[in-house]
Amino acid sequence: MPVVTMVGGGQLARMTHQAAIALGQCLRVLASSDDDPAAQVSADIVLGSHDDLDDLRHAAAGCAAFTFDHEGVPLEHLIALEAEGVPVRPPSKALHFAQDKLAMRQRLRELGLPVPDFVDLADRSAARDALISFGEQHGWQIVLKAVRGGYDGRGVWLLDDRDAALAVLDGADDATRLMAEAKVPMRRELSALIARSPFGQGSAWPVVETIQRHGQCAVVLAPAPELAADVAEKAQQMALRLAEELGVVGVMAMELFETDAGELVVNELAMRPHNSGHWTMNGAVTSQFEQHLRAVLDYPLGQTDVVAGPVVMANVLGAAQSPSMTMDERVHHLMARLPEAKIHLYGKGERPDRKIGHVNIVGAPGASVDEVRERAERAATWLSTATWTDGWDEHRE
Amino acid sequence: MPVVTMVGGGQLARMTHQAAIALGQCLRVLASSDDDPAAQVSADIVLGSHDDLDDLRHAAAGCAAFTFDHEGVPLEHLIALEAEGVPVRPPSKALHFAQDKLAMRQRLRELGLPVPDFVDLADRSAARDALISFGEQHGWQIVLKAVRGGYDGRGVWLLDDRDAALAVLDGADDATRLMAEAKVPMRRELSALIARSPFGQGSAWPVVETIQRHGQCAVVLAPAPELAADVAEKAQQMALRLAEELGVVGVMAMELFETDAGELVVNELAMRPHNSGHWTMNGAVTSQFEQHLRAVLDYPLGQTDVVAGPVVMANVLGAAQSPSMTMDERVHHLMARLPEAKIHLYGKGERPDRKIGHVNIVGAPGASVDEVRERAERAATWLSTATWTDGWDEHRE
Repeated sequence: MPVVTMVGGGQLARMTHQAAIALGQCLRVLASSDDDPAAQVSADIVLGSHDDLDDLRHAAAGCAAFTFDHEGVPLEHLIALEAEGVPVRPPSKALHFAQDKLAMRQRLRELGLPVPDFVDLADRSAARDALISFGEQHGWQIVLKAVRGGYDGRGVWLLDDRDAALAVLDGADDATRLMAEAKVPMRRELSALIARSPFGQGSAWPVVETIQRHGQCAVVLAPAPELAADVAEKAQQMALRLAEELGVVGVMAMELFETDAGELVVNELAMRPHNSGHWTMNGAVTSQFEQHLRAVLDYPLGQTDVVAGPVVMANVLGAAQSPSMTMDERVHHLMARLPEAKIHLYGKGERPDRKIGHVNIVGAPGASVDEVRERAERAATWLSTATWTDGWDEHRE
Repeated sequence: MPVVTMVGGGQLARMTHQAAIALGQCLRVLASSDDDPAAQVSADIVLGSHDDLDDLRHAAAGCAAFTFDHEGVPLEHLIALEAEGVPVRPPSKALHFAQDKLAMRQRLRELGLPVPDFVDLADRSAARDALISFGEQHGWQIVLKAVRGGYDGRGVWLLDDRDAALAVLDGADDATRLMAEAKVPMRRELSALIARSPFGQGSAWPVVETIQRHGQCAVVLAPAPELAADVAEKAQQMALRLAEELGVVGVMAMELFETDAGELVVNELAMRPHNSGHWTMNGAVTSQFEQHLRAVLDYPLGQTDVVAGPVVMANVLGAAQSPSMTMDERVHHLMARLPEAKIHLYGKGERPDRKIGHVNIVGAPGASVDEVRERAERAATWLSTATWTDGWDEHRE
């Protein structure tokens, strides 16, 4: 069976390996350490750096597809690998737009897809004036972003006034390219998860609602509750069209804002399995990890239907203060209390707000999403903090 | 997180490793070769023999539970390991009954559980007379079995007449202990799959129907269609009671005959994840592989409900003549035709009738089991033979 190489040994590679096993494969992982989440569990580990072209070449040797656990591989290395015949998926020409938020915004606008107003602040000599002009235009309801490298709330500054905005600009080091975007008055955040194969087949899972805390995904409700069918379909079509236009291969998440007026605005893109798709591991016929493998191998894509009722995914985050009770004991108690909870742990050390696992709960057909969410959040909070809560605390959001 | 050691590197260990990943673990496998199904995919492989006490000790070092992919480990080695403090699960006192069919039959009879009439033929000097007497008593509708080591139809001889029976007896080598059983006139075969933890918690999946071909499991219908609720409950209770009486830990399959009169008779026992439970990987809230890990680690057990409609598992067997089309190409075509099929491949070479994978199809709630079965069998036959069939051929059964 074919060998797929994934660059990066994090939880996405770990869970892709799980899916690879069923397909008769073993995922080859380029990991930085034997202790990486994926390196702990796969039999085919290449130790090295995603920044080192020779390490990338070594990991790519003989693979049928070369793909990614994160967006951090230098584009010039990928272009070099492609020139040497390595099947890089998604290809560098597509991945560029997941690495560079400014290029992504510009391309989306060219394609007529809805994006917030934005301004390029890369030219530092003109940046201060450009920021002031843009800020005043939007009443200083703006977001500053690093063009490259941000994730999970890092490299993103939500701002309300001129002084704070200028302070971020002045404080940024010279290597950090910045851009500014208008804040979108929104009802909630959605994610349209799709996959596309080199052949051009596309498939879309139901659109989900994502709930962020401290700038990173905390909870996913699948499908998004009370989302109008035409809005859901529009979100899927936007994601599929963008994937086609950019030549994306593999799973792609299009994070969206649903505005107060019920319109959609594109927020971020990820061209890999994504936190907003972890619910598919238990709640959909085909998980995003299996689908990513199918897509990068140019296999026909799997069915994306929900298997039963509403599914809720809640991230397990490292607590501000690690509980004295071990994770093994916490798992034990959770299993006793919620025997239906599907636990996914990543083998990572506990640090505050670090994603160390997630819990999925699949509701029965017709179940209330709030009731399923209550259980999923209770389970995840327990694993994080060794504290039982009743329901979820809206104030944390 | 705890380390579980599994002896044997076959597909059961491979699939247990998949389940271990979600629980934050990596399964340690004692494998005979790097090429074993589980050794291909786990990062923690000990190479050695299940017959060698030092190899077993090496694999057991520091593990929280020591369990099995097959029943072939010599009992005296397990007793030695237990004396050294290794948490052998199931314990030797229970595993004995899965290794020795005669002891199992005798124990079941003592417990008042329904078994076919049987006779011990271990004493070769008396065996011929005993067999003739037993055969005449049952009109030569008997089965000869090796007391140890048989599986998947090996070590089992279905017989109809005296000459054939005596030929098996005369042809057996001196090391093979034999027994004979009366054939049970039956409607179908069932399997009651349960799990039990050291604490004594038990859980049961819905009872399934198993369809055998050439003496080995070919198809599983879950739940067993049109099985009376009281019969299903009786089967579950028998399995749970036996597990309790024997001190079984982990997953146990009790294979049963449903007689023409609607009575249950116990056929075989397996104290490990079992082919009749592969459907749980996609069709039940908790898979048998996760449950086995939970049980041997004395975690609370997971929910065993069916997630949606009827589930059908069909084994992929090596074909009499290997197709010229590669398995990778076959997978490609299957995915195109049945995007809902859940494929599980074991990384094994193709040999006639060898179990090299299985396919699960989960029906929608209320779906017809025949319709789901048709798709599952079509998928499995395709992967075996590169031939599409319409429905299944009753004559193969």
